[in-house]
Amino acid sequence: MTSTSRREFLSAAAATLALGGGVEVAAAEERSAETSAHGAAFDDQVKPVPLPFDPKSLVGLSTKLIQSHWENNYGGAVKALNAIRSRLALTLSDAASPPYIYTALKREQLVRTGSVVLHEYYFGNLGGSGKVSADMRSKIAGSFGSFDTWESEFRKIGQGLSGGSGWVMLGFNRRLKLLENYSMSDHSTGPIDTSPVLVMDMYEHAYQMDYGAAAAKYIDAFFANINWETVASRL
Amino acid sequence: MTSTSRREFLSAAAATLALGGGVEVAAAEERSAETSAHGAAFDDQVKPVPLPFDPKSLVGLSTKLIQSHWENNYGGAVKALNAIRSRLALTLSDAASPPYIYTALKREQLVRTGSVVLHEYYFGNLGGSGKVSADMRSKIAGSFGSFDTWESEFRKIGQGLSGGSGWVMLGFNRRLKLLENYSMSDHSTGPIDTSPVLVMDMYEHAYQMDYGAAAAKYIDAFFANINWETVASRL
Amino acid sequence: MTSTSRREFLSAAAATLALGGGVEVAAAEERSAETSAHGAAFDDQVKPVPLPFDPKSLVGLSTKLIQSHWENNYGGAVKALNAIRSRLALTLSDAASPPYIYTALKREQLVRTGSVVLHEYYFGNLGGSGKVSADMRSKIAGSFGSFDTWESEFRKIGQGLSGGSGWVMLGFNRRLKLLENYSMSDHSTGPIDTSPVLVMDMYEHAYQMDYGAAAAKYIDAFFANINWETVASRL
Amino acid sequence: MTSTSRREFLSAAAATLALGGGVEVAAAEERSAETSAHGAAFDDQVKPVPLPFDPKSLVGLSTKLIQSHWENNYGGAVKALNAIRSRLALTLSDAASPPYIYTALKREQLVRTGSVVLHEYYFGNLGGSGKVSADMRSKIAGSFGSFDTWESEFRKIGQGLSGGSGWVMLGFNRRLKLLENYSMSDHSTGPIDTSPVLVMDMYEHAYQMDYGAAAAKYIDAFFANINWETVASRL
Repeated sequence: MTSTSRREFLSAAAATLALGGGVEVAAAEERSAETSAHGAAFDDQVKPVPLPFDPKSLVGLSTKLIQSHWENNYGGAVKALNAIRSRLALTLSDAASPPYIYTALKREQLVRTGSVVLHEYYFGNLGGSGKVSADMRSKIAGSFGSFDTWESEFRKIGQGLSGGSGWVMLGFNRRLKLLENYSMSDHSTGPIDTSPVLVMDMYEHAYQMDYGAAAAKYIDAFFANINWETVASRL
Repeated sequence: MTSTSRREFLSAAAATLALGGGVEVAAAEERSAETSAHGAAFDDQVKPVPLPFDPKSLVGLSTKLIQSHWENNYGGAVKALNAIRSRLALTLSDAASPPYIYTALKREQLVRTGSVVLHEYYFGNLGGSGKVSADMRSKIAGSFGSFDTWESEFRKIGQGLSGGSGWVMLGFNRRLKLLENYSMSDHSTGPIDTSPVLVMDMYEHAYQMDYGAAAAKYIDAFFANINWETVASRL
Repeated sequence: MTSTSRREFLSAAAATLALGGGVEVAAAEERSAETSAHGAAFDDQVKPVPLPFDPKSLVGLSTKLIQSHWENNYGGAVKALNAIRSRLALTLSDAASPPYIYTALKREQLVRTGSVVLHEYYFGNLGGSGKVSADMRSKIAGSFGSFDTWESEFRKIGQGLSGGSGWVMLGFNRRLKLLENYSMSDHSTGPIDTSPVLVMDMYEHAYQMDYGAAAAKYIDAFFANINWETVASRL
Repeated sequence: MTSTSRREFLSAAAATLALGGGVEVAAAEERSAETSAHGAAFDDQVKPVPLPFDPKSLVGLSTKLIQSHWENNYGGAVKALNAIRSRLALTLSDAASPPYIYTALKREQLVRTGSVVLHEYYFGNLGGSGKVSADMRSKIAGSFGSFDTWESEFRKIGQGLSGGSGWVMLGFNRRLKLLENYSMSDHSTGPIDTSPVLVMDMYEHAYQMDYGAAAAKYIDAFFANINWETVASRL
């Protein structure tokens, strides 16, 4: 993406985000005061991270799909997270509100936070050549016996999640000191104390527009676009 | 716990774990060959970590409760994790097994892995005086506005989970660079890319034996036994 | 239970429910107006159903356990359901509230509604002799091959849920025209279009107080107290 | 759909289902013996129900979308349910298999059973004019205060589930004797003891192919195609 086209893309994205935001200035100011009293954990100014690649450069994943994914699903998650944090700040101060209402909102916060973070990892590990170095193959083989065993399990999990929602993650479990693959059924499901290394979105918005129900073809396209340099830098 | 009583306790625990294991030597050897071919990610030799304190030293949480929690719930999770990893190694090699069967087993692995790791953090942050240093108060206030706001939210989440299952976690979200409290409805629910700092078990096995349905009393007891030095070392 | 002791029990239960309700009269009246405008689906006047047996008559399940279960877990679910319905009526009218906040509350409503209904079935199928008629054995065998296969699966599901939360249900799936056993991980998980026939609570509040982590002993006690006449009447 | 084109459609669907089934005759026969010993609850001969309308007759939902939905998502669920039931029969007989492995498979059975039943209700309530009779409006108003309140809540739940997975259900809760709307986050989430009256699929496979992320447009199209006569017959 040239700097001009990226600027246009981001500008369009910003406009998309603005639409439907529909929060009046007065209300926003009131919330700002509320959240600053509660600290950064309730801050409602999370900003979306731009795509780290030109969508046109991907093979087998259309620009339309990637833009919609980034703007609507990732962008929507950022917007929702900000709205929920504001709501949490207000609800925490409301002595009449029972704890299980608060917990219901916290669950939604976990879902949206997970969506924001996982999408950033996902877009972050796309835009590459799909070619994996001998060093990375060897590191992965260290935990899985062989690189092929790893790839076979990673793809199998993806297939098992097809037709529904979820994520596949290769992560470094810092407690077990081990690389493992994880199957996660939604944004709020995930391994404890684990650094994401490679994540693949299996929500249907990641592929239906291009491949319909043919998830296996999407998984092939995902592998062809992995940025293994970025993946290596996460280890 | 004296070294003698600890030895007895661990020995009893080991006996408990052995009962019901019921795996014949031949089968274990077959699995070992299978898993070593698959690498450490399928290794079935995870061992339980001993309690880092003498259960008798806790106030308001009985030795019977803590021992049962460690032996049956944590110990059971370790045993189940090993069994599931063996099963995964066998199933991955079985071409006739459809991907959604594999994903069902992976979900169970995520549940048991989460249970093992979260219980280790939980027991790890008990056994202290409950007295928090000015430095820690200040660090927590940095994300929450004030230490009291943090404590108020942490306790409210616990209350909201009472009568069911789940965990409360104060964690450092490394992507958002922020301390946050999380509400987790089971062992497989959790924040992505987050380091646990303080975790509280809200499964009913953590308190029913001592407090019945009175979860608020358990939360008080939990706070009275927090080892804030350990918590500080995790930051 | 004599009518006097039942009156005392219910009166104690009512007092328990009243504590912590803490809703001022004015607020209640406001809500009543709000919910009547929204119809019965938002009505906040759901009342708890009394226990259909004298807790002292059960074998192997203590009166203390059953009373706590009925008052705190079932009674708490009724109270929470009423509070959530009021909150839904208010939120639905609030145009500024985004749909995912509403959905978060609806999820909580599903959890509490499930808890209310499942607990009523659970207490409803206790208080009996545990003796099953030849007719019921034969009806169950009709779907499962044999009564023993059914019992074996029902108990195995219970064991698999031990140490966490969930329910086991024998239900008549009206779409598939079949009796089936279901494994449900929480109150909001359940088979579609299915009539409950026999339900067993596997939340730890159903047994920890009497049996600690020994779920198998609880399952034995549950079977010994099944009211098979009630179960038969549900078919 | 003419009888010829329906025959072609079903024949194509059958071929699609056959592909990937890949089960050898010998294995199938072995399973049949196994499941007949276990009874109908383990039967692996569930058959898909044909679409009750000609996909070309729908407005705003493409034939390609509906066919893919029926063949791949519904058809896939039927196939998976049969495979899981066979696996359950084998695992139940295996004394060496621990209960939590069995429970993991039962969870997957619940997911697939829910998918089969919900999709049959979904396709069953499409293919109509979208025009609702005064009688139905009045019946719905009886539980919700007004028909518009019902429609407003039903649509809001759909919006709240957009971008992920789930179902919206108008159901008759037989325990509470009430029509209610439910928000269900996946196929295994659902209200207990409730008859489905109107269900809307909010998995992204129900709309991404036609509408991308614009779920509101899909909800409009869904309402325009509701077969209210069928819905009325379910009450």
